[in-house]
Amino acid sequence: MKSRRTFIKQTSAAGAGIMLSPNWATAFNKSSNYMLKVGLIGVGLRGTNHLSNLIQREDVEVRALCDIDPSRIALSTKMLKDAGKTEARIFGKDEWDYRNLLEMQDLDAVIISTPWRWHTPMAVDAMKAGKYAGLEVSAALSMKECWDLVNTHEETGTHMMILENVNYRRDIMAVLNMVRKDVFGELVHFRCGYQHDLRGVKFNDGKQPYGGGVEFGEKAISEARWRTQYSVEKNADVYPTHGLGPIAVMADINRGNRFLSVTSKASKAIGLHNHIVAKGGADHPNAAVKFKQGDVITSTIETARGETIIITHDCNLPRPYSLGFRVQGANGLWEVDGKRIYIEGKSQPHRWDAADTWLKEYDHPLWKEFGEYATGAGHGGMDFFVLQAFVQSAGKGIAPPMDVYDAAAWSAVTPLSELSIAANGAPQEFPDFTGGSWEKRNPYPWLEPLY
Amino acid sequence: MKSRRTFIKQTSAAGAGIMLSPNWATAFNKSSNYMLKVGLIGVGLRGTNHLSNLIQREDVEVRALCDIDPSRIALSTKMLKDAGKTEARIFGKDEWDYRNLLEMQDLDAVIISTPWRWHTPMAVDAMKAGKYAGLEVSAALSMKECWDLVNTHEETGTHMMILENVNYRRDIMAVLNMVRKDVFGELVHFRCGYQHDLRGVKFNDGKQPYGGGVEFGEKAISEARWRTQYSVEKNADVYPTHGLGPIAVMADINRGNRFLSVTSKASKAIGLHNHIVAKGGADHPNAAVKFKQGDVITSTIETARGETIIITHDCNLPRPYSLGFRVQGANGLWEVDGKRIYIEGKSQPHRWDAADTWLKEYDHPLWKEFGEYATGAGHGGMDFFVLQAFVQSAGKGIAPPMDVYDAAAWSAVTPLSELSIAANGAPQEFPDFTGGSWEKRNPYPWLEPLY
Repeated sequence: MKSRRTFIKQTSAAGAGIMLSPNWATAFNKSSNYMLKVGLIGVGLRGTNHLSNLIQREDVEVRALCDIDPSRIALSTKMLKDAGKTEARIFGKDEWDYRNLLEMQDLDAVIISTPWRWHTPMAVDAMKAGKYAGLEVSAALSMKECWDLVNTHEETGTHMMILENVNYRRDIMAVLNMVRKDVFGELVHFRCGYQHDLRGVKFNDGKQPYGGGVEFGEKAISEARWRTQYSVEKNADVYPTHGLGPIAVMADINRGNRFLSVTSKASKAIGLHNHIVAKGGADHPNAAVKFKQGDVITSTIETARGETIIITHDCNLPRPYSLGFRVQGANGLWEVDGKRIYIEGKSQPHRWDAADTWLKEYDHPLWKEFGEYATGAGHGGMDFFVLQAFVQSAGKGIAPPMDVYDAAAWSAVTPLSELSIAANGAPQEFPDFTGGSWEKRNPYPWLEPLY
Repeated sequence: MKSRRTFIKQTSAAGAGIMLSPNWATAFNKSSNYMLKVGLIGVGLRGTNHLSNLIQREDVEVRALCDIDPSRIALSTKMLKDAGKTEARIFGKDEWDYRNLLEMQDLDAVIISTPWRWHTPMAVDAMKAGKYAGLEVSAALSMKECWDLVNTHEETGTHMMILENVNYRRDIMAVLNMVRKDVFGELVHFRCGYQHDLRGVKFNDGKQPYGGGVEFGEKAISEARWRTQYSVEKNADVYPTHGLGPIAVMADINRGNRFLSVTSKASKAIGLHNHIVAKGGADHPNAAVKFKQGDVITSTIETARGETIIITHDCNLPRPYSLGFRVQGANGLWEVDGKRIYIEGKSQPHRWDAADTWLKEYDHPLWKEFGEYATGAGHGGMDFFVLQAFVQSAGKGIAPPMDVYDAAAWSAVTPLSELSIAANGAPQEFPDFTGGSWEKRNPYPWLEPLY
């Protein structure tokens, strides 16, 4: 997420003692009769971002921190201390030390913000240990991992929430509100994706997280240390959930609808190589690396209700950020590019309305009530709301809004797109992760002010 | 095309005697040493539009008119007379009378603007008769028809030009100019399509061409009389060339590059049925018609150079018009939705430029020189330029800019998308219509002021 780039500023602000207003604390905690004891597995840029937001809550105690990088532990410990919080237990003596964290008795929930290869194993272990798991995106990289999440949940009865923050973006929640109120009519077609120039994320100089060099892997730090390798090894949409999560909720996926099949095609891969040559020279060792990941990967999903969803992965070329949303139904459509909405009978014939008017009218009750505070918490407020949902669900011990079936279905695009691309675009079937219950499951009450 | 809606006004203007300025005539005809003798096969809305533009030229004589509808012949005859032109020979006593037109000795070229089922048969017959053929879009509906066009051209040596007017749109030609000048760098990905609410075109009341009722077929007039049936019978992208033509030229298709394969998916089909019920009531006989054509059809093409092209067909739902263009390369991209361009090193990092600035800088020489006149001729000037290219190519007896191989490759999307949709999105291979010569053929000199 682009949003991660703004993290440091916000962490610093939090570290400097800017705390929540008493108003907020009252509003949010008046009805909570729990104190959620949380452990953070992974306190890199994303994990400390969560920490910064958790620190501001009065219904959460951060009891444990886990990271194999001592500098991140030092930073996180300082954040807690500066906020006047109780010291947390520390883990990270090796990669498996998180399992000792999971054995803590006085711990209700964990938030997992680690490199992708650890997402599923850690979430599985967390559920087995009875800890309510919050898992960063994407949740799984293979079909086996998708099933591991589902099976473990069903075996243990423990919940897991995929922490897809874009589902809580203000425009997304307003459009979801419009969908639920049938403004678009019967839904027909969607577009979404992750179109984000990540060249400055995939490469750095080993000193600063973003850019300044063309190293990745062991010579790099932060995401470039592990994330870039997937561009070498996988020709697949490795990051589908920022786009697909919001669309899946609007389309009632796993709750009256489901993904049936996907076809994927990849363009040539030139962006990362060009970047290395331009910034590091043709003689840099990384100029010889062959990247498998096509620069623009397009996947088309068909749903049980007969909708189509186009997902784009476009992260290796110069371009401004866009998740490229479109929501189209029998009565009209929203397009995020151009910020425009057309609703038959309401809009002037054949003329777009500025989306803002509609989005304001259908602003989500949660955003209306808590938007001002949420925006102050960073990331345009998305992260506040996704944490709010997680903390409340875990605190009350109820199923989360975006659960293990959602995590599996959304993440399955990665292995299925890889298979489809390798087979020249041949369609790949989605398994039914719900075992048939998708037809009966009800949509979550997203429109309640607090769930 | 939306543009057809504005036709009547323009025809009236031409009929009222608004002729070309002497300046224009001088500019365009000073170097022409031909007088092209043209016959029009089909003078419906589109054909009379061409007639209106041809009448204004001093390098063209309209020698023959063919239509089975006497009212269209009457209108066309009056247009010629009002312009002070020589009377044309009239054909149309039955559907095959166009073949008698093709036997005329004093005729160089024909322009075919008939229902789609007649496009290929008439173009084939024209080439066999030695008449330079201008063929409206789309050119062919089946793979056999695609091959018929190619084979007939190769057997007869007669040329055929597909009259894709969008290739001459001002923004398209500016972007083509940018492509040729390498502003976008190596090309990677394209988007295009035909996103046009045609419900008012596919249905009318049998009296006026656009809307006012929910009839199609025999009870309707104009396009609704024949076009709508394809929505009943075909689940396919039946109209790919407005989007694909411009992209194919930018991507050097058949001239150094070619389409390799396509995968297509269709959404559910609810738009046309909903429209009938809303406007004609649930008891209207057409409310029982089952439409095969999905409301949104998405096709993904892979090219020999490793680019991907997404084409959309979206004609049955309420929405403002957009051809949805994107042209994306190693250095940046243009998106028509949002009217924006980003070029690395020129644009502010991660910020879009308004496209207009770029499009003005790279305005095509043809548009710079003749844009003012062309715009006056209607359709934003596209039709002036496409006719200019046709008349000059035919007048000089040279190959057209968009030829029989282009017509075949672009139109092949219709039968291939139908096969792919029927096979759940399975990829379909494009044949190489050029028989291997695509690798050696040079791009046409689109950037010359006059070719």
